[in-house]
Amino acid sequence: MDREKIFEELSIRNEKKIVLLIMDGVGGLPLNGKTALEAAKKPNLDALAEKSSCGRTIPVLTGITPGSGPAHFSLFGYDPIKYNVGRGILEALGIDVDVHEHEVVARGNFCTIDREGIVTDRRAGRIPTEKNQEIIKLLSENIKEIDGVKISLYSGKEHRFVIKLKHPELSDKISDADPQKEGLPIKFPEPLENNENAEFTANIVTKFMKKAIVVLKDSHPANALLLRGFSEYPMIPPMQKIFKLNPAAIANYPMYRGLAKLVGMNVLEVGPEIDDEIITLKKEWNNYDFFYIHIKKTDSYGEDGNFENKVKIIEKVDQILPEILSLNPDAIAITGDHSTPCKISGHSWHPNPFLLYSPYIIKDEVKVFTEKECAKGIYGTFPATDILPLLLANTLKLKKYGA
Amino acid sequence: MDREKIFEELSIRNEKKIVLLIMDGVGGLPLNGKTALEAAKKPNLDALAEKSSCGRTIPVLTGITPGSGPAHFSLFGYDPIKYNVGRGILEALGIDVDVHEHEVVARGNFCTIDREGIVTDRRAGRIPTEKNQEIIKLLSENIKEIDGVKISLYSGKEHRFVIKLKHPELSDKISDADPQKEGLPIKFPEPLENNENAEFTANIVTKFMKKAIVVLKDSHPANALLLRGFSEYPMIPPMQKIFKLNPAAIANYPMYRGLAKLVGMNVLEVGPEIDDEIITLKKEWNNYDFFYIHIKKTDSYGEDGNFENKVKIIEKVDQILPEILSLNPDAIAITGDHSTPCKISGHSWHPNPFLLYSPYIIKDEVKVFTEKECAKGIYGTFPATDILPLLLANTLKLKKYGA
Repeated sequence: MDREKIFEELSIRNEKKIVLLIMDGVGGLPLNGKTALEAAKKPNLDALAEKSSCGRTIPVLTGITPGSGPAHFSLFGYDPIKYNVGRGILEALGIDVDVHEHEVVARGNFCTIDREGIVTDRRAGRIPTEKNQEIIKLLSENIKEIDGVKISLYSGKEHRFVIKLKHPELSDKISDADPQKEGLPIKFPEPLENNENAEFTANIVTKFMKKAIVVLKDSHPANALLLRGFSEYPMIPPMQKIFKLNPAAIANYPMYRGLAKLVGMNVLEVGPEIDDEIITLKKEWNNYDFFYIHIKKTDSYGEDGNFENKVKIIEKVDQILPEILSLNPDAIAITGDHSTPCKISGHSWHPNPFLLYSPYIIKDEVKVFTEKECAKGIYGTFPATDILPLLLANTLKLKKYGA
Repeated sequence: MDREKIFEELSIRNEKKIVLLIMDGVGGLPLNGKTALEAAKKPNLDALAEKSSCGRTIPVLTGITPGSGPAHFSLFGYDPIKYNVGRGILEALGIDVDVHEHEVVARGNFCTIDREGIVTDRRAGRIPTEKNQEIIKLLSENIKEIDGVKISLYSGKEHRFVIKLKHPELSDKISDADPQKEGLPIKFPEPLENNENAEFTANIVTKFMKKAIVVLKDSHPANALLLRGFSEYPMIPPMQKIFKLNPAAIANYPMYRGLAKLVGMNVLEVGPEIDDEIITLKKEWNNYDFFYIHIKKTDSYGEDGNFENKVKIIEKVDQILPEILSLNPDAIAITGDHSTPCKISGHSWHPNPFLLYSPYIIKDEVKVFTEKECAKGIYGTFPATDILPLLLANTLKLKKYGA
């Protein structure tokens, strides 16, 4: 019996409320002797750490640097290797495109081709986003459907866009339509499996790409397109089914709203700031028993290598923490999805500092919420997929296993 | 998707250099209050531990005492349970016998039988090695091939030897040819699987054993032989493929050179002493990106229960450490393959003290490289198979997993 089945069998619904507060990319490495968590003034986080059980979480595997997709699946209690969602899906979620059953999505680039069809610029000179929007409008008006497959196009930033195909007989087992290098001819997708759906999909995409070149003939430099990461809608058993939760997501970036939706969360309306997230939390407190709250900017400033602003976001979270605690959640966990050290200006493999507070924890000797102190916590270093089971256990939402 | 596939997909080649320094059997238990690591004066190892992230590694599973084979597979990043290499192979590697595809090897004992074919001494009175070499020569001259199967014999120490069979239709699925006890008749192998190759191999080995008894009729006490641990050449995907490393092994004992060869390492020429290993390292520094350096004698003295000499070897490694560090490896890990406490005079199940130094580690509070102090390190106690992923991560040789 696998892990998921065990939780499905043991989980029960009750009135107790859980908060999972994710500071995206909060873990880091020392710069001038201190990590952002060590440099930040965060009396509330530290006071909570002092009352809590602490540890460090491994998002996927030791040494592996995860993208946001797998890192979040772990946080939501799902095996991130079993549910490795396609890049096309994540790109779509990132620009707020909903994906459903019978749909295949892919990430697109506008590119430049010469008269012989040779790709001379894979990013079409990074055209401005407004130009992208114009071209998407033009293409959408000219190509709505091919052989019964509905085609939808969505602008991203600069040269990027998302394509969505809708038909019951599609497959995502087709190759990227991208020569990967400039100086090579435009490439059409090939079926990766020997079946009708893959052949049908490759054929539709090829027709679409050829039609697009006709429509875009006067749109230099964006006169063709490349498509990568074809992905079907992933069938993931929802949190309601496996964990019996009635879960809500409070996140103001599309990617995280999308990831939450994939596991069945109710994605709540929220404004763009951290304060807006707290407003939503208070408003909706009585309607759900699980709240995933996502703080994006710890990661964004980590990616930018902006140590000072990363510290400020941590301090901002510290300021709003008492408002969350005043709601008296029965269990609250605070951690990151992955680390984003300013020293690396990107995601990293380092485990995330973690705390859990409930009436049922064993308080350890950790007094400060930092990478190094949490490493000394009672949980040690453990897989992030164990966070959700710990939260369920600490709110008495899991029955006994066996007699 | 399994772990190996993930690393194969994520690993990339770059110029950064890794050193994995293995002090075989370095971990131990206190004798008169101190372990060998605690008793040794090792300012350089301790200074490096102070700058590093520390922990303890579990070679196979908690409580399991590993042989050198599985312990090294873990160090090289391979699942030691999936790749459990046969004893015949390890015995062959141990006396510097190369093994290739289409070959089956086994460990042999010369033994004494009486006129009725009853084994009266399973070790033939532990004949001197020189006598063994004479007998091997005699047998080799008289039995070169049986039914198209090429037969090669190699002397070990005292009564021990290795046999190698070469033919495309061999199998290692045959039983040991050893009654296990004295007073029983000599035993011939039986096929363990119902297939032609196993039957063919058992038949060839039986013919060989009978011929040997004829050839050895005047060689009392070594007038017959026993064979155990038939093993085919194990097919292991090389480190070049899975981890994209260009790896080199510096080891002056045959077993470890052989283990390194099994995972695709380039086994470098080296003299018999620890100093020789450093000479080779310096000479070859520019030619590889991964160096496995093996120190044998910490284990040998552990096996002998020779505490004083185990301490001396640790102190010797401490002296040469600055020479390794002066090459500026981008990441260095130091640990054992398994523990070999003088108190036990043999391998043990105790985790190995571990340190890792790179620009991307979080320095912990460990200041001394010992069993007990490393247990307080930031990595805690973790599987030895995670060492290689950590080394790859710390040299930026792993791409991000998922988007």
